Amino acid sequence: MGIVVQKYGGSSVADATSVKRVAQRIVATKKAGHDVVVVVSAMGDTTDDLIDLANEVSPLPPARELDMLLTAGERISMAVLAMAIGNLGAQARSFTGSQAGVITDAEHGRAKIIDVTPGRIEVALAEGSIAIVAGFQGVSQTTKDITTLGRGGSDTTAVALAAALKADVCEIYTDVDGIFTADPRIVHDARHVPQISYEETLEMAANGAKILHLRCVEYARRNDIPIHVRSSFSDRPGTWVLPADQVTKDPTMEAAIISGVAHDRSEAKITVVGVPDKVGYAAAILRALGDAQINIDMIVQNVSAAATALTDISFTLPRADGQTAMTALARLKDEVGFERLQYDDGVGKVSIVGAGMRSAPGITATFFQALADAGVNIAMISTSEIRISVVVAENQVEQAVRAAHEAFDLGTDEVEAVVYGGTGR
Amino acid sequence: MGIVVQKYGGSSVADATSVKRVAQRIVATKKAGHDVVVVVSAMGDTTDDLIDLANEVSPLPPARELDMLLTAGERISMAVLAMAIGNLGAQARSFTGSQAGVITDAEHGRAKIIDVTPGRIEVALAEGSIAIVAGFQGVSQTTKDITTLGRGGSDTTAVALAAALKADVCEIYTDVDGIFTADPRIVHDARHVPQISYEETLEMAANGAKILHLRCVEYARRNDIPIHVRSSFSDRPGTWVLPADQVTKDPTMEAAIISGVAHDRSEAKITVVGVPDKVGYAAAILRALGDAQINIDMIVQNVSAAATALTDISFTLPRADGQTAMTALARLKDEVGFERLQYDDGVGKVSIVGAGMRSAPGITATFFQALADAGVNIAMISTSEIRISVVVAENQVEQAVRAAHEAFDLGTDEVEAVVYGGTGR
Repeated sequence: MGIVVQKYGGSSVADATSVKRVAQRIVATKKAGHDVVVVVSAMGDTTDDLIDLANEVSPLPPARELDMLLTAGERISMAVLAMAIGNLGAQARSFTGSQAGVITDAEHGRAKIIDVTPGRIEVALAEGSIAIVAGFQGVSQTTKDITTLGRGGSDTTAVALAAALKADVCEIYTDVDGIFTADPRIVHDARHVPQISYEETLEMAANGAKILHLRCVEYARRNDIPIHVRSSFSDRPGTWVLPADQVTKDPTMEAAIISGVAHDRSEAKITVVGVPDKVGYAAAILRALGDAQINIDMIVQNVSAAATALTDISFTLPRADGQTAMTALARLKDEVGFERLQYDDGVGKVSIVGAGMRSAPGITATFFQALADAGVNIAMISTSEIRISVVVAENQVEQAVRAAHEAFDLGTDEVEAVVYGGTGR
Repeated sequence: MGIVVQKYGGSSVADATSVKRVAQRIVATKKAGHDVVVVVSAMGDTTDDLIDLANEVSPLPPARELDMLLTAGERISMAVLAMAIGNLGAQARSFTGSQAGVITDAEHGRAKIIDVTPGRIEVALAEGSIAIVAGFQGVSQTTKDITTLGRGGSDTTAVALAAALKADVCEIYTDVDGIFTADPRIVHDARHVPQISYEETLEMAANGAKILHLRCVEYARRNDIPIHVRSSFSDRPGTWVLPADQVTKDPTMEAAIISGVAHDRSEAKITVVGVPDKVGYAAAILRALGDAQINIDMIVQNVSAAATALTDISFTLPRADGQTAMTALARLKDEVGFERLQYDDGVGKVSIVGAGMRSAPGITATFFQALADAGVNIAMISTSEIRISVVVAENQVEQAVRAAHEAFDLGTDEVEAVVYGGTGR
């Protein structure tokens, strides 16, 4: 049997009882004959509590020290998990990111993995131990300082270790049974997706589905690591994320062109009104946002009215960056000579994702007709080869998701009694 | 100016407010022109909370994993302290025991320091940073696993770093102004001791004074590191612990032969009654206790009554080991043929300590007369070159301490308004 990497998030190890439950699952995997490597996040609210503590002593804690502080969270959870496994009669050894050979750049708070040298993990496995590794953390190659990987860090740790160890599978445990055709809190007949391609998963993740983080899926795709997203609260199979050519579509979904409907309520829309339609002005606006470290998502520029030679440029961005963006743009007013700025955080994005749309005509028409029939007005549109996204009023997001889900016949007759939750790190 | 090593215990960094107060003291030391290295314990009850968590998942957590878990405590305190210092405009960098070069053996939970290679600390100091080091922890030379140093570990970390860095002084901060001639909770006119020798401090520590741990004082003595024990809650000078030939006795105490009175209520007494007075039986008893990993303190053997050729052997030991010792000895009953075992945990030990007693006759007589006058009965006696200890009934400990303190004229007219507290790690 080969190596299985399992990743458990903070909600799966929220307290001693959860830790003991997870330990039983791990020992069962070991007893089934696998070599087991476990990546674990901090327990429950530990990370938030540590951030609160940091803010009590400093309004802007140095990033190096914040990383040192936050990595204490995984240190606690991994040691406690190793103890719980030991108490079940199996042998476990815990390793920090540094000990596990997770080598990163020196960007504290958002470090990137540049190498994985899991020699100590291999020794532990060879000795018959279960290896427990702290997620979300590594050590800088240049400074030897402890780093954290930022959002999605623990998932990425798990996939990176799976790649370095040539594991058979990377199991990502969460509190739901994997990926669904839409958020079951909104669409009550949302269907469980047994298999899905990396590319579709990336589009889902980039457009609001909170099950897997972009980075982890990208890492898995580059290294061909199968991901199995599943619930730590049940033994039901989850969703396998695989290379597109290995995905067997669920027979009951054979006709499906669309894999799922994603939505995102975390963005705001800014419109720069009355921009002179001259070369370089759009670039100046985007450069100002880039300089302010703001990632924008969708961009739309209207054709200018010939009479005025003025155009409007709209874009979406994370709401958290709204104030920064407005300030950066206001400074450009004289240089660019636009009329005014409009800020709208009452928007939401709804996306349909599916590898099948590559070769299926009429998808856009079906989608937009469904929205029109549901009385949903479209404010912006953006497409990729396997995705169509629209921006709508925030209070129409749920109608739009249900309309799209029904239009593409994604539903099941069974109502899934699960909650579609977010992941931690 | 030279290097100052400062150690702050858990009560000095119990919460964000305390951390900020300690940060101000550290920055003031830096501004006075010193290079500053700070060793810090875990905040307040963190260690106890982590031990509770461990016990929730395992009745007997593996020592390696317990060390991994507990070292999270200092990781948190050192990072938060570095942030608080940064917030005051000074530069601080935190280091784990491993990063600071604290190399130990592989005895988890009670590792011994075998080398200190503080290269990263020296670099940080050269860059103008204050270095914050996690106390109580190191890394095993052989297994590369994280270790903890056991009781007194943070004090020992501080002294070991001071020695490796050739620091001018190792300041140990606690919640009292240093060492007193007796516990001020018992003797209200106990006098503050400005300077004291390593040897006297060792005898005080070994006989119940809880200010400094034996290990740390022994390490300082071997390396000639001056220790300054002082309060983190005041700017008053504390007690300097120095080589005997550098101790200047307080002029107001010139006549004092005795430096202080220590007491200890943590021991129990076991008597093996009716041991045949033959060669090798005492050794068999002591070997049984040694095999059970029990450290015994005082031992007394009575001269045998000629008529019976039987003797009694009494010894004291930590109360926590009482049950284990009784079990180990009961197994010897047939082999040695003693009559019975007596266990008494209603005892206490009172010791007078003073380098001056080497050359002063009559000390023992004065001490015992004072006890007799106070109506205190002596159960056991033990002496060293600079200490006389007696075991008395536990409920007579306070009378005995006061009587000895007064007999040797140790008091001051001022009543010190401090509490003589214990140290954490």
